[in-house]
Amino acid sequence: MCNVKEWSHVFKLDPNKSIEEDDLSVLCESGTDAIIIGGTDGVTFDNVFDLSERVQRYTVPCLLEVSTMEAIMPGFDGYLIPSVLNSKDKKFITGIQHEAIKEYQDWIPWNQMLVEGYCVLNEEAKVFKAAECELPSNEDVIAYAVMAEQMFHFPIFYLEYSGTFGNAELVKEVRKHLQQTTLFYGGGIESYEQAVTMKEHADVIVVGNVIYKDMQAALRTVKACRQ
Amino acid sequence: MCNVKEWSHVFKLDPNKSIEEDDLSVLCESGTDAIIIGGTDGVTFDNVFDLSERVQRYTVPCLLEVSTMEAIMPGFDGYLIPSVLNSKDKKFITGIQHEAIKEYQDWIPWNQMLVEGYCVLNEEAKVFKAAECELPSNEDVIAYAVMAEQMFHFPIFYLEYSGTFGNAELVKEVRKHLQQTTLFYGGGIESYEQAVTMKEHADVIVVGNVIYKDMQAALRTVKACRQ
Repeated sequence: MCNVKEWSHVFKLDPNKSIEEDDLSVLCESGTDAIIIGGTDGVTFDNVFDLSERVQRYTVPCLLEVSTMEAIMPGFDGYLIPSVLNSKDKKFITGIQHEAIKEYQDWIPWNQMLVEGYCVLNEEAKVFKAAECELPSNEDVIAYAVMAEQMFHFPIFYLEYSGTFGNAELVKEVRKHLQQTTLFYGGGIESYEQAVTMKEHADVIVVGNVIYKDMQAALRTVKACRQ
Repeated sequence: MCNVKEWSHVFKLDPNKSIEEDDLSVLCESGTDAIIIGGTDGVTFDNVFDLSERVQRYTVPCLLEVSTMEAIMPGFDGYLIPSVLNSKDKKFITGIQHEAIKEYQDWIPWNQMLVEGYCVLNEEAKVFKAAECELPSNEDVIAYAVMAEQMFHFPIFYLEYSGTFGNAELVKEVRKHLQQTTLFYGGGIESYEQAVTMKEHADVIVVGNVIYKDMQAALRTVKACRQ
C-alpha cells in the first residue's frame, strides 16, 4: 500500500500522450515518489494498459487515477478515486463512484484505494468543464478542505490548477486547515523555482504537462523536493 | 463523545411535536441509549432549545440531528450530520454541509460530530421529498452502504423508512456489507415484535412516531433490545 504521507513529488503521465522509452526511464528513476497514470480525455483501456506495462518495469510505485470505468484494470500499486467537491453535479462527487461500486463491488481492493477530494481552480481546464465545476471562493476552498478531512476522512485533498500556476497564498492557507489529510498541489509547475514555491506549502506536488514540453525542467522539479 | 458502536436503541424526538413531562421522563429513563432531537419540518431554534433543555435534565445522552442551520446550538452530547446519499441534488449530500462549515468552521467541535450516510427508502416520507431523493434498487442501497464505509469512513449508515416498516431482508443484506460503520434502521417500529425483527439485523433501531401514538408500545421497543 502506498503511504502518501511520505511523498513529496509525483509525476502524472497522460495515457493519451506519447513518451519515448528513454524519457520514461529517466522519469521513473528520477527519485520521484510515484508515477500516476491519469488524464481527462482520450483515456482508454488500451492506452492505460500499454503505459502501465511500461512503467511497471521500474521499481517506482505506479498508481492509476481512475477517470473512466472503461480503463480500470488490476496490477497497479494503488488507485486514486477523485471526488470533485466543487462540481455542481452529484455525478462527479458520488455518482460515478456509486455506479462503479455497484458494478465492481466484490472486486474492489479497498486497501489499495485512495480517495482524493478534488477542488478544481482553473476555469479554462478541460477537467473543470468535464466535471461541471463552479469556481469556488477562497473561503469555499478552505471549507472543502475541512470537509474532505473532517467529514469524509479522505487521505488526499487535491488543489488542481491544471495547466496554470496557482495561488501559493491559498495553498498555504489550505495547508493550515489540514492535519491528517495530505495536500496535493497540481498545475503549472514547469521550473525548479515553481516547484520550490509550491512545495513550501503543499505536501505533494504533481508535475505533468512539462514532461511533454521540457524533460530537463521536469527532472529539476524532483530535485527541488529533495533539497 | 458518544460511542454509537455500543448502542442498540435510540428514541428520536421531533421538536415540532409536544410531549408531556411525565412521558419525557419515562422515555429518558427507559434504558434507551440516547435521545436524538430531529425532524423534517417546523424545526426552529426555539423548539429545539426548549426540548433539549428538558432532555438534558436526565443523564441519557442527548444528540442533535442537524436538519437546518437555524437550529444549531451548543450543549449537546453529540451532533448527527446527515448526508443523503440517494438525493439527486448535491445540496443534500455535501452542499448544505459545505455552507455550514464555511460559516461555522472555527466553532465546530469535530470530535462531537457524527456523519450519517442516509438512504431514504419511503417515497411517501416528507424527508424523501424534502431531500429530493430517488428510490434506489437493493443493489443501489448496498453500494451506498459500501460507499459510506469505504469511501467516506462514515461512523453511521442510516436506512430510513420514515413512517413505514421496511424490508428486513434488505437490512440483513446491508448489514453483511458493513464492518466498521454502524447500521441504523428507522421507520415504522411500533411494537415489541417489530423491534425484535429489525434489531436482529440492524445495529441500532431508531424509534420515533410511536412515541406520539402509544407510549407503552414505544417503551416495549427498548425492552426488545435488552433481551
